[in-house]
Amino acid sequence: MDIATLRAQHPAHWKKACAIRVLTLDAVAAANSGHSGMPMGMADVATVLFEKHLKFDPAAPNWPDRDRFILSAGHGSMLIYSLLHLTGYKQATLEELKNFRQWGARTAGHPEYGHLEGVETTTGPLGQGISNAVGFAMAEESLRARWGSKVMDHYTYVIAGDGCLMEGVSQEAIGIAGKHQLSRLIVLWDNNGITIDGKVEIADITDQKARFAASGWDVFECDGHDPIAIDAAIDMAKRSPRPAMIACKTHIALGSSAQDTSKGHGALTDKQLIADTRAVYGWDHGPFDIPADVKAAWEATGARGAAARAEWEARLASLSAAKQAEFARVFAGDAPAKLGGAIRGVKKAAVEAPKKLATRSASELVLAAVNPVMQETIGGSADLTGSNNTKTPDLGIFDPINRKGRYVFWGIREHGMAAAMNGMALHGGVRPYSGTFMCFTDYARPSMRLSALMQVPVVYVMTHDSIGLGEDGPTHQPVEHLAISRATPNTWVFRPADLVETAEAWELALSTKTTPSVMALSRQGVAAVRKTHTNQNLTAKGAYVLAEATGKRQVILIATGTEVEIALKARDMLEAEGIGTRVVSMPCMELFAAQDEAYRKKVLPAGPARIAIEAGVRMGWDRWLLGERGKEAKADFVGMSSFGASAPAERLYQEFGITAEATVAKAKALL
Amino acid sequence: MDIATLRAQHPAHWKKACAIRVLTLDAVAAANSGHSGMPMGMADVATVLFEKHLKFDPAAPNWPDRDRFILSAGHGSMLIYSLLHLTGYKQATLEELKNFRQWGARTAGHPEYGHLEGVETTTGPLGQGISNAVGFAMAEESLRARWGSKVMDHYTYVIAGDGCLMEGVSQEAIGIAGKHQLSRLIVLWDNNGITIDGKVEIADITDQKARFAASGWDVFECDGHDPIAIDAAIDMAKRSPRPAMIACKTHIALGSSAQDTSKGHGALTDKQLIADTRAVYGWDHGPFDIPADVKAAWEATGARGAAARAEWEARLASLSAAKQAEFARVFAGDAPAKLGGAIRGVKKAAVEAPKKLATRSASELVLAAVNPVMQETIGGSADLTGSNNTKTPDLGIFDPINRKGRYVFWGIREHGMAAAMNGMALHGGVRPYSGTFMCFTDYARPSMRLSALMQVPVVYVMTHDSIGLGEDGPTHQPVEHLAISRATPNTWVFRPADLVETAEAWELALSTKTTPSVMALSRQGVAAVRKTHTNQNLTAKGAYVLAEATGKRQVILIATGTEVEIALKARDMLEAEGIGTRVVSMPCMELFAAQDEAYRKKVLPAGPARIAIEAGVRMGWDRWLLGERGKEAKADFVGMSSFGASAPAERLYQEFGITAEATVAKAKALL
Repeated sequence: MDIATLRAQHPAHWKKACAIRVLTLDAVAAANSGHSGMPMGMADVATVLFEKHLKFDPAAPNWPDRDRFILSAGHGSMLIYSLLHLTGYKQATLEELKNFRQWGARTAGHPEYGHLEGVETTTGPLGQGISNAVGFAMAEESLRARWGSKVMDHYTYVIAGDGCLMEGVSQEAIGIAGKHQLSRLIVLWDNNGITIDGKVEIADITDQKARFAASGWDVFECDGHDPIAIDAAIDMAKRSPRPAMIACKTHIALGSSAQDTSKGHGALTDKQLIADTRAVYGWDHGPFDIPADVKAAWEATGARGAAARAEWEARLASLSAAKQAEFARVFAGDAPAKLGGAIRGVKKAAVEAPKKLATRSASELVLAAVNPVMQETIGGSADLTGSNNTKTPDLGIFDPINRKGRYVFWGIREHGMAAAMNGMALHGGVRPYSGTFMCFTDYARPSMRLSALMQVPVVYVMTHDSIGLGEDGPTHQPVEHLAISRATPNTWVFRPADLVETAEAWELALSTKTTPSVMALSRQGVAAVRKTHTNQNLTAKGAYVLAEATGKRQVILIATGTEVEIALKARDMLEAEGIGTRVVSMPCMELFAAQDEAYRKKVLPAGPARIAIEAGVRMGWDRWLLGERGKEAKADFVGMSSFGASAPAERLYQEFGITAEATVAKAKALL
Repeated sequence: MDIATLRAQHPAHWKKACAIRVLTLDAVAAANSGHSGMPMGMADVATVLFEKHLKFDPAAPNWPDRDRFILSAGHGSMLIYSLLHLTGYKQATLEELKNFRQWGARTAGHPEYGHLEGVETTTGPLGQGISNAVGFAMAEESLRARWGSKVMDHYTYVIAGDGCLMEGVSQEAIGIAGKHQLSRLIVLWDNNGITIDGKVEIADITDQKARFAASGWDVFECDGHDPIAIDAAIDMAKRSPRPAMIACKTHIALGSSAQDTSKGHGALTDKQLIADTRAVYGWDHGPFDIPADVKAAWEATGARGAAARAEWEARLASLSAAKQAEFARVFAGDAPAKLGGAIRGVKKAAVEAPKKLATRSASELVLAAVNPVMQETIGGSADLTGSNNTKTPDLGIFDPINRKGRYVFWGIREHGMAAAMNGMALHGGVRPYSGTFMCFTDYARPSMRLSALMQVPVVYVMTHDSIGLGEDGPTHQPVEHLAISRATPNTWVFRPADLVETAEAWELALSTKTTPSVMALSRQGVAAVRKTHTNQNLTAKGAYVLAEATGKRQVILIATGTEVEIALKARDMLEAEGIGTRVVSMPCMELFAAQDEAYRKKVLPAGPARIAIEAGVRMGWDRWLLGERGKEAKADFVGMSSFGASAPAERLYQEFGITAEATVAKAKALL
């Protein structure tokens, strides 16, 4: 539908959509940076969605049963900022729009979760939003099954562009959604045929409709500038028993001289171009000036959901007080009162009957105790269930015929799994954890970074955490991955040494509301190192003295995970030679770094030689080996400086010199 | 086709395929680890491929015009090890098969490039092989166009499983192959319906044939146990004008009691099961015992390609001596003689007319000088051509109507791009480099790790390398990515400070044969810091003294990239206060670490306070701040300890305290 027809036939719609377009032009011009074309192209679709379909209430941005709107094409951030402003979200002031992309503004270059109410997830890294959305929709299905449609009954809408669809993670997400027949998920594809480098066809000839259909989706299409066609397509998509994709044919940078070009993708800041475009739009108001009738029309759209919200609140209030409290708890992300007891139970039992155990098996024991008392957990694995030990008997399988199931077979899709977990955590009401091999942290990296940036407490169960994986060889043996996760801000990397530390790590990971955790767990068995029970969670301090030196303290061995056992053995050998040796277990560097200096110095006093033992690269260790010391730095490292190799695990530890004997030799060389 | 029919109708084929199956069973039993089911399921397909189609010569494993065979489903490594042994590859001895998965063996758990001739690429991390294959096929197309089909005229065959197809990177690769109509690429899908967690359908209902077709592939199918059907399907695929996927319906762990189950995916080591399976096969020979007639039949298959190879050599010999030398050079991966001169030319010009320049623009200037004298380069970008500055005017666009083009529009597919670059580099004859934003290193990580592990000299052009990216905000601002790349073994991370260092970095990246490089380049302009011309490549030592202290040396400022300018400014301020300050530019930590201790101590002598300045996290810096020192460690760091934010770059540097003023304050606090 061309602009003239649209203006003539749908004048009210046209003005509302135009408000989005000119706010976009104005904000991008003010910032002298941003992406104009996408909001200009998708304004009609978004207007119809918000006006006729989206269930939302700007007065209650976090209403649990709202529809979720996810702008996967996050570079078009002015689309959502405009919508939030126009419909009356309090935080989305005109001032914020004027400060687009400036220091301290809520209106960041790309939509940032936590900066501005109404932004459901951080997008910009392409493919993430559509993949988060799959998690949102899974959470909704799960909660609807468990809580009933009285209190949980909504849709997840996504606007995605060609960039999102070219990113591989979208295929993983599409596959997951298709398998699980997530009928409440509706993707609006901004089919404008343009990317930064030119026409889509210079890089891709994929028939997206056929591709979605191949994975079990229903596919619709519409002229993305015809409000009646858009409305009808969304109507059909809502009725579809499968996830739905609507191919919306649009013109990027509609109405400007950059329309349908890659230039239109970026920042349109040329004054003449902007003036000409306003003329084409028939918009004779100044920058950031939205006429009262248009604002009123948008506010009416914003007010549309208040009644539905009130009805929902009445329905929630009809639940028992206990159920209401539980509903509030799971949506607040608070751990249940019983978690602490479950963890202490595991710890006590572990100390009473210590045994050699892989920490991945330890993790399974913890989950078996936790899952029954924490009904909001949803577990899973990227096709390594038996190896990641993530499935406990009570969970049941989540699938189209058992929405109450709490275990997800993600398939071989680490990235999609991580992105969907982010979506689940952001949706609220569920607490996701899932596993793969530690080495395949690589595949999930973009989403793991976003967990940290968005501060969502997802738990990554990363087993086979070193060369201890053995025969599968260097492609499957992480060496740099502990450093990678530790280098990422706001990420807790736990590498527990035994069942007790594993239980403590899980307690922390399941209690935080703001930090994702990486559980680095072993394939191979290790001896229990914690011999006495403490109610206190020692892992919470990140590192602690596990074994003290006899007599003068000459050496401190610092180790994590499976190497704590090696440290204890080396200590025995050194002590036998009269060399006083302390062993510090450091299951979480980040938490140790967060302790005060006094505690850190108590655990790692200046003076003794220090050796760290970890079957990974040294990067990240020098802070503890060399830093915060007043004296000559006598220090060394026992670990990896290359990729691994294929052989049985014990042989690899010998060949790469990660042994008590090597540790003793290095310690003595320092004295 | 069932086993009885197969044995009856195709006895010779059956025996050959059986040899693969029993060698797999025997090797996995000997190792007590591995994956039996896949080779047992795909033995018929592989036998037909090697016997009737694959152009190869075990006597010349690196013959440039051989067909490439890529086992994307790398866990089925015994399939390729068996094939290489049976057809007569010298390195693939029976002894190696018996040492499957043992220390020092060429037969690693997953096929490792460089360990065993005939293994074209390292596979195991799923989705990589099929994506490498796209790069192999692109290299072949490019070289055929440029060198003629006389010397370049071959196919790339891939065996891929459901895991490969579920990984998102496969969609990126499929999209690239479809766009470029890579008709010499043939994927044999092991359609066995089983993954580790159970039936494929528990995680995926995708119609793979429809999905490939949607991206421009031709799709065929066959009974993967019927040699005639397999042969016919491959015949058709070879004649197809598009990339071809053959869905081979197979039975995992064929003939064993674990057939068609997820148990069959893993290590079948039960003695009775193995004995029973041998009985079903009618194979009454001992472990690792291949009867002479079967071995002879396989050796005949191995001998099949010798004539073709000889004819090819004759054709190569018919080229001019200069052309032959050039062909040999590009396949050896040697840099051209003219590279050094081109680099020195850029360096000289830079010093003669120094100007403020983003290092990404510097990189473009270098490429403009290098590409014309290095015809084997193939450049590209993941839809950020104008931002990555990777395209120079002479390259032309690689696409189906211009195979000679040397620039690839990869689309928004960082992972597929990286995997394809690995394939190109492994194919030989071309030298790939391509770009995206540094932050999206995350998307390409799994393939970047494999570049390092395989020792292929791919160049990753990663621009917008810090908060200096500005308004796009924290999703696009790398802070941990320098640390991530540096944590990875065998990776050179260059962060050049100006045009001269950028030229030097490119010279090193384009001269190595064994190490991938990450070029971390700035969005924002920086002043030239190298003021005098040297023919010597100072970046080759990783770090060097850029500005010496006047009088007593009290402070050493170490910086990289855009922060070198800040270091020089801070030095001026400190010197003005009489504080002697040395500035060390450290464009490549890894190369500096590789220097001898004497040089390292010369650059970073004990004594002075040290401050590192880099707009990224501190991880990795403590070695240079605190390590290798005999005295009290006075040191500090000016950089990031959190994610970034959305605002103009200069404001961000101020707000995060990465300034000369902050550096001076920290330096003075240490004195």
